[in-house]
Amino acid sequence: MVNVAILGYGVVGSGVAEVLTKNSDSISRKVDDFITLKYIVDVREFPDSPFSECFVKDFSVVENDPDVNIVVETIGGATIALEFTRRALMAGKSVITSNKELVATYGYDLLQLAKSKGVSYLFEASVGGGIPIIRPISQCLAANQLYEVYGILNGTTNYILTRMIRAGLSFETALKEAQANGYAERDPSADIEGHDACRKICILGAIAFGRHIYPNQVPTEGITKITLADVDYADGAGKKIKLLGRAIRTEDGRICAYVAPHLIGNENPISGVEDVFNAVTVRGDAIGDAMFYGRGAGKLPTASAVVGDVIDAAKHMKAKKYLDWAPGGDDVTVSPDGLVMSWYVRGNAGTDAVRAAFGEVEFLARSGAPAGEVCFITKPMKQETLEEKLKPFHISNIIRVLD
Amino acid sequence: MVNVAILGYGVVGSGVAEVLTKNSDSISRKVDDFITLKYIVDVREFPDSPFSECFVKDFSVVENDPDVNIVVETIGGATIALEFTRRALMAGKSVITSNKELVATYGYDLLQLAKSKGVSYLFEASVGGGIPIIRPISQCLAANQLYEVYGILNGTTNYILTRMIRAGLSFETALKEAQANGYAERDPSADIEGHDACRKICILGAIAFGRHIYPNQVPTEGITKITLADVDYADGAGKKIKLLGRAIRTEDGRICAYVAPHLIGNENPISGVEDVFNAVTVRGDAIGDAMFYGRGAGKLPTASAVVGDVIDAAKHMKAKKYLDWAPGGDDVTVSPDGLVMSWYVRGNAGTDAVRAAFGEVEFLARSGAPAGEVCFITKPMKQETLEEKLKPFHISNIIRVLD
Repeated sequence: MVNVAILGYGVVGSGVAEVLTKNSDSISRKVDDFITLKYIVDVREFPDSPFSECFVKDFSVVENDPDVNIVVETIGGATIALEFTRRALMAGKSVITSNKELVATYGYDLLQLAKSKGVSYLFEASVGGGIPIIRPISQCLAANQLYEVYGILNGTTNYILTRMIRAGLSFETALKEAQANGYAERDPSADIEGHDACRKICILGAIAFGRHIYPNQVPTEGITKITLADVDYADGAGKKIKLLGRAIRTEDGRICAYVAPHLIGNENPISGVEDVFNAVTVRGDAIGDAMFYGRGAGKLPTASAVVGDVIDAAKHMKAKKYLDWAPGGDDVTVSPDGLVMSWYVRGNAGTDAVRAAFGEVEFLARSGAPAGEVCFITKPMKQETLEEKLKPFHISNIIRVLD
Repeated sequence: MVNVAILGYGVVGSGVAEVLTKNSDSISRKVDDFITLKYIVDVREFPDSPFSECFVKDFSVVENDPDVNIVVETIGGATIALEFTRRALMAGKSVITSNKELVATYGYDLLQLAKSKGVSYLFEASVGGGIPIIRPISQCLAANQLYEVYGILNGTTNYILTRMIRAGLSFETALKEAQANGYAERDPSADIEGHDACRKICILGAIAFGRHIYPNQVPTEGITKITLADVDYADGAGKKIKLLGRAIRTEDGRICAYVAPHLIGNENPISGVEDVFNAVTVRGDAIGDAMFYGRGAGKLPTASAVVGDVIDAAKHMKAKKYLDWAPGGDDVTVSPDGLVMSWYVRGNAGTDAVRAAFGEVEFLARSGAPAGEVCFITKPMKQETLEEKLKPFHISNIIRVLD
């Protein structure tokens, strides 16, 4: 008998309770043992819940019950969630979470604590919702030297960009629609400013390259500057604008991680990832490119990943060896300023002046462009070089181009 | 110290040797032990190989060496490979393979043998080359009731279809080009007749639904009947023709597995999978759709998957619990005749006669169609109903439409 406690009965927590009970037969068969939902910890009252018998308000009930083997933390944030995770691990219970903020900030410490207690700390659901990503990178691609991991990591921004591209909505209108559909929070800043994607690329980078990356080490830019003009120009060039989190291993073994919008050519399958879907591409020396695609958020997809981890922890009640990375530090990351890439530039200038400054460029066109507007894609160069060359011009927007 | 023996020094076997030695530092770090390539068994001579000291001609050297923990079988086929796999497992060694024919035909027996000996039999590389598929389905999606798994499982046919679609080549010309580029064998029948995809969907179906499926239980149709006319009509309807292997769980718990070309709408991301790439989509009750994409064949991608399994086996020298399924049997599968789906039909008939027989249909157009040719997509129906309705007409081709 494996007993599970869920901390926090919100969207994900209630989904976990639902999946655990709905598919309990097949799950118990896979584990070769019975998995039972014993407690749900929440300060609120849920008298009509089908799990009403499980509710307790006090975490110490879970902490002090030696029969609880696995704790699912779906509280979110990095305060109470951190405290309860620490106490659960200290009490010798494996902890499963979907909490990207906690993993991105305290992942190293919590993994060490879990290791010292001989239990698991698993967080497949923290990146890409239900899409299997963390286990495939850490296990299936373990034979590879990985060069890069990048992806569309935030469904809200991808929905907004898709609506701008497909329906010609402005950023503001698309955001309002996303809020009306429940895809964006009332305060959407964590999504549209890129912070959510930032936490996720920290986790992916740590898994891929073996060092903890802190969110404050990752330059982060959202999608608020993207206009319909940019979307149209990109479309004319056979490209789409997507918000990417990227983590790249540099030659000296450091990690260049950042979040920013990119133009992506239609021949790259990630350009076709639409609406609230997420996708992650991994580049390795043996595999080449592999991509993982699916629903990056939502109650049941996220619960699918959480319960997958519960099953794994239940099958291996002693600690799994596969998740581990080295501590972070100032020497871990480097700035993306050193990256050489092509740039999309929109501004006001004559084409001759652009050619004089940049040499050969790819000029882009859109219908209805105002007189004097120019738009082009440069040859690959560093951001510093770009900015130097752009000094004489009046620039409206610059966007990175994925090679 | 973990000692590995490779059986067969062909494309995949030599790739495994290369990846194991090239990335040995990072691999040993992940395993927390040294992985050493001790033997390569091949009857041929390779005096110039960098691994020349490892070669032996007699498998019994491997079999009788108690220091060999892991045997990598990359011989192919189901005769010698079967014998050596059995003998290696009997000798208490874990076996890793990329051999889809062997797994599709003898997977159940070999898994049982491995279990009885307390060792692993792993075959991530047998489907989708380097793409992580088998472990994600069996582990990460374990919380789901899976409804269906389908995919583009053969790179050769996908290359041929891509060249027909993109470059307007005929099937015969595209096949010759694939052969010239080394993507197709001189005898291409295993690929173009669908047998390779058939073996792979047997394995995927067994992993997803827990019963062994034999290749002779899977109706299999290749791509030899696909013409440029079909490709053009599909394009006009916003669809692409792809060869799919599908395994669907029916309501009574049986499995409907088959291989056939399908029209796929451009909104389905699998329609954008081109050239020699493969992709597998899994449908579950919690996850919804998840897709895995990457290089489905080739020396290093396949070696990536094999060595990933070697690492896994080395980390868990006792048997892993995650791969297991029940025996096959006549009661496991049902015919695809019972599936209700839309159909693409090309033939000679008047549109009024088509409407009279089928009611509302979607008529397709292409430039340069000969007089009297008609092409349409039906409403969903069983194949039997379709064939009954088509009796009065002269039909050139019918193709399934993926819903």
